[in-house]
This record gives sequence, C-alpha cells and structure tokens, in this order.
Amino acid sequence: MLGTLYVIGVGPGDPELMTLKAVRIIKETEVICAPKGREEGVSLAMAIVGKVVDLQGKDIIEGHFPMMKTKRQGSGIRGQGAGQADELDSKWKLTGTAISERLQQGKDVVFITLGDPTIYSTFFYLHERLVALHPGLQVQLIPGVSSVNASAARAGVSLALADEKIAILPANYLGDLREIFTRFDSVVLMKVNKVWDKVYEILKEMGLVEKSVCVSRAAMEDEEIFYDINNIKQDELNYFSILIVRK
Amino acid sequence: MLGTLYVIGVGPGDPELMTLKAVRIIKETEVICAPKGREEGVSLAMAIVGKVVDLQGKDIIEGHFPMMKTKRQGSGIRGQGAGQADELDSKWKLTGTAISERLQQGKDVVFITLGDPTIYSTFFYLHERLVALHPGLQVQLIPGVSSVNASAARAGVSLALADEKIAILPANYLGDLREIFTRFDSVVLMKVNKVWDKVYEILKEMGLVEKSVCVSRAAMEDEEIFYDINNIKQDELNYFSILIVRK
Repeated sequence: MLGTLYVIGVGPGDPELMTLKAVRIIKETEVICAPKGREEGVSLAMAIVGKVVDLQGKDIIEGHFPMMKTKRQGSGIRGQGAGQADELDSKWKLTGTAISERLQQGKDVVFITLGDPTIYSTFFYLHERLVALHPGLQVQLIPGVSSVNASAARAGVSLALADEKIAILPANYLGDLREIFTRFDSVVLMKVNKVWDKVYEILKEMGLVEKSVCVSRAAMEDEEIFYDINNIKQDELNYFSILIVRK
Repeated sequence: MLGTLYVIGVGPGDPELMTLKAVRIIKETEVICAPKGREEGVSLAMAIVGKVVDLQGKDIIEGHFPMMKTKRQGSGIRGQGAGQADELDSKWKLTGTAISERLQQGKDVVFITLGDPTIYSTFFYLHERLVALHPGLQVQLIPGVSSVNASAARAGVSLALADEKIAILPANYLGDLREIFTRFDSVVLMKVNKVWDKVYEILKEMGLVEKSVCVSRAAMEDEEIFYDINNIKQDELNYFSILIVRK
C-alpha cells in the first residue's frame, strides 16, 4: 500500500497563519519534505513549521528547487552556470526518489510549501515525476494563506469588491503590463525586485504611483510596507516583494 | 480609548482551514460581528467559527450585507425591490452603529468573513463608514485561506508556475472574457452560477472545455467537483461555484 502525499501550504511567514489542518497533519506525519530555496540559505517553510510543531524525531527530507528557467534557456548557458544547474536538477531528482521510497514503504509524506501550494509552488514540478513513478498516487493539497492575500491584508487594502477584476503576474512579465494596468482593477506583481526600475517607470507614466503599495516579506518578522514607493531602490528590495496596484 | 477592529478571514468552509491566529483572536475577543449572506439564510462564517470556538457568552452582532449593486442600478428599480434594498441598507447602517458603539466603549471587535478579507469581502463597505465615524480607528486584517486557493487545491490543480499569469474575475463580467482567456494562463471565475450557459458557450468555442474544472462549495461539507463540465446545468449550480480554466 502506497502512502499518501500531503502538500501543505504553511502560510506566508507568521507561524500563527498556519491552518489548524496544516498543524494537525504535520504533527501526525513522520516524514516531512521541506524545499530549500535558491535565494534563501535555509528552508523558510521549515522554520515556520518548527515554531509550532516539535520536529524532534521526524524524518526530514531536504528538497531542492529545480532550475527550470535556466534549463529552458539551456543553449545559452556555458561553463560553471550550466554545471550548477545540472547539479541542482540532479539534487531535485534525489528529492523525488527519497519521497518515492517512503511512499513505497507505505508511509505518508508531507511536502511543505510557503504560502499556498497552488500559487507558484515548486511542488508541481515534483508532482509530474512522482505520478510517473506511482500512477495511483494519492495527493492531497492542503490550501494555505497565500502571500498575495497576506500582502494585501498587511497593507490594509482590498484586492477586489463586487464586479472588480484581479490580475496576478510574476513581475518578470513586462509584455503587456500597460494594458493589464488599464483593464484590471487590481494588479499584483510578484517578485517585483528584479524589475523594479522598469515597473516604476510604467507606473509613473500611467499616473499609478499613488495607487501602489509595495510589501516586502509580508507577515515575516522583518516585513516592510512601502506606502510611498518613490523611495524604493531596486537593489534594496527583497526577493519576497509584492507590488499591489489598486485603482 | 477606542477598541481595535479585527477583520478575520475564517477560510472557505472547513473549520480546520481556520488559521491559529483567527482562532486565538476570536477566543480572546468578546464582541463578534458575523455577516449574514443574501443567498444563505444563516451566517456561514459564524457556523465555521462555532465548530472551533465556544461562542457562549459572546456579544454577537448580526451583520447584513448592503445591496450595493441594486442601489447602483437605482433608477431602474421600482416598488417592492427598492423597498427591500432600502431596508437592507438601513440594517447595514445599524450593523455599523452597533460595531461603532462597542469600539467607543474601548472594546475590541472581531468582524469575521468567509475566505480571505481582501478578496470580495463586504467588509470594505463597512470600513468606509467606520473610518468616517472614527478617523483614528485601528483596523487589523487577518488573512485567511481564500476560496480561490481552496478550489484549486480541492481540484488538485496548480494556478500558476514560474512565469504564468492568473486572472480572477467575478463571472458577471463577460466583456472581454475571450481575450482574457487568450492572454492568461489561468482564469478563475467567481460565482459562475449566474452566467454558466454563456461562459460554457465561450469555453466550447475556444476549445477550453477540457481545460476547465468547476468547484462548488469548495471545502464545505457538500462540496462538488466537476472535472467534466459538459453536464453542468446552470440552475443546479450553487452560488459558491468557481470555474478554473487552466491552459
């Protein structure tokens, strides 16, 4: 009998924003896989869980993110960069194998993920691999508080009322950003740190600077909220920075 | 000293999807305001809370939704309809007054809301009114698991990976739906029951029927998931029905 795989959103950072269900299932399960981020040295998701659940005696599998983007742009990569990407991808495969072994022993496995598992979670790369290995695998996704909702709540703004429309975009997508700003009532830009200067230019041009708020590391201990975005410097912005434009 | 107003998302329906923070603050606070829906006879949010927190001895304020849309379309409304709208709006004002009184007595007040307070929560109508009455009012929004994330999790689909874009729309917005389906990787249509036939027609025309899943009352006891949307009948769909189109 194959074990069940629980993919659990542990919320954006504040351990109190974990759900009762997340806490219960993590307590009841021996095997926990925690992804380790590329940008952060430790597993943030595991640090959150560790403040609420006693992890002593758990069987912890350290997960590594695959370098999906690097691989996709593949041909342009040479030397050390490509070596690092390969190394990370093979570590990711080891993560899948480690989970697979536990499942085959009939053990349930919990995969924890920051925020909510359905929004920009790396779990889904692993999903394909695991389902290929175990076609009958039972996967249960346990939703969590996403960083999108947490950022809006911390900034004290509503994302949508009544007939309003929300767009959620990774900020590296600058293609038709002007049009999206025009058509949508709320636009949420994720990981805005990498493209801040370009986005700020567009906001200024469209008269949207006053309608914007930037939340860095929402609900984490070192959260920052910028109601005046004019003073933001791109290189000072954190990886977990979200821009909310509310017209 | 004015009390603090906590606006708390209690998640989509499953009481276990409440956050630890929601449970703690509701336990600690005497005054609870629970909105009563138009479509449902009882307060769903209160029913969820009641399964986790002992409500004995709490000071419960029953909140009523304002009829914003009816009022906006105002001039077209005659007779009994307009009367009902006025009545509901005056009840809504009474809700604001009841909360205001408690705050003025220095008591904290909890306003509970289904899902997450920043996504289509009626609280924000009340917010304006309360801030007008108490300019220095401290409002704390406590994020919750939104029905958007819960629907995707229950259906077992990812809303976005890597560079993908999500659009969240109330389904009565049919304007440029074709274009939004074309431009976004995931489209989430809220309250799709009222316009099902029209939406289905567009999905069929665009070859998106196979890419769609409809979740009714996600994470509630009587949840239904339609992986095959061909057999859905508009008049059988629940008010809390969400369509996810994932390309």
